[in-house]
Amino acid sequence: MDSTIQFIGTVRSELKRPEDCPLQENENAPPAILQIFPEFIEGVRDLAAGSEVLVLTWLHQADRSILKCVPRNDYEAPALGVFSTRSPDRPNPIGIHTVKILSVSTDGLISVSGLEVIDGTPLIDIKPLWKTRLR
Amino acid sequence: MDSTIQFIGTVRSELKRPEDCPLQENENAPPAILQIFPEFIEGVRDLAAGSEVLVLTWLHQADRSILKCVPRNDYEAPALGVFSTRSPDRPNPIGIHTVKILSVSTDGLISVSGLEVIDGTPLIDIKPLWKTRLR
Repeated sequence: MDSTIQFIGTVRSELKRPEDCPLQENENAPPAILQIFPEFIEGVRDLAAGSEVLVLTWLHQADRSILKCVPRNDYEAPALGVFSTRSPDRPNPIGIHTVKILSVSTDGLISVSGLEVIDGTPLIDIKPLWKTRLR
Repeated sequence: MDSTIQFIGTVRSELKRPEDCPLQENENAPPAILQIFPEFIEGVRDLAAGSEVLVLTWLHQADRSILKCVPRNDYEAPALGVFSTRSPDRPNPIGIHTVKILSVSTDGLISVSGLEVIDGTPLIDIKPLWKTRLR
């Protein structure tokens, strides 16, 4: 079974270091550009400004060996199993973000609202938001 | 950069064929068991019955070459760029599901409410639901 991620593009952001990143997208993350690789541009041609979408990223600086971690901003708390947290350090460091599309260019540059990942983060997927349960 | 998914477990379900699956988890999907591999059990030890979580799966029977597709149940409609759809056939066939945990055993069997993937689907991740925007 092929279990290798194919990156579809790269995030371009003013955030250059992990320590500059807010921890969730609603904590004042800056706008970013999703730079889609040429071979995947056909897949984004129906995205439009104004839509809210889910963006999946590969948090490439993560520590993939982590199974327990301490909740952010409370280092006195007991460690939790990593699957009870949203830590980027986890076996498969996939970031899931909700963003609003601000503009789309025909050459595959998609400008989006607040995205809390660093410049150069690989892009995995873009999906419409659920119509129902995760609205 | 290592871009290979590490599977953390397997979904056990009464759904044996893709054509048996409902298209979203709120369309009468049956309960399922998340069977966590022994080396990842420490990461799920703080999950508890009653919680709602996000489950990420690898839809291993997907066609990863697809960039355009026709919306389900409307084959007269124009094809859309795949990133404007939730088709499982896409470059990175990651399924994102919201489920409720029904029970957790110490040997890594997690029983969950409706999950619309077939028996044997690899499991990638479990995350808490967002507290804010995607509630």
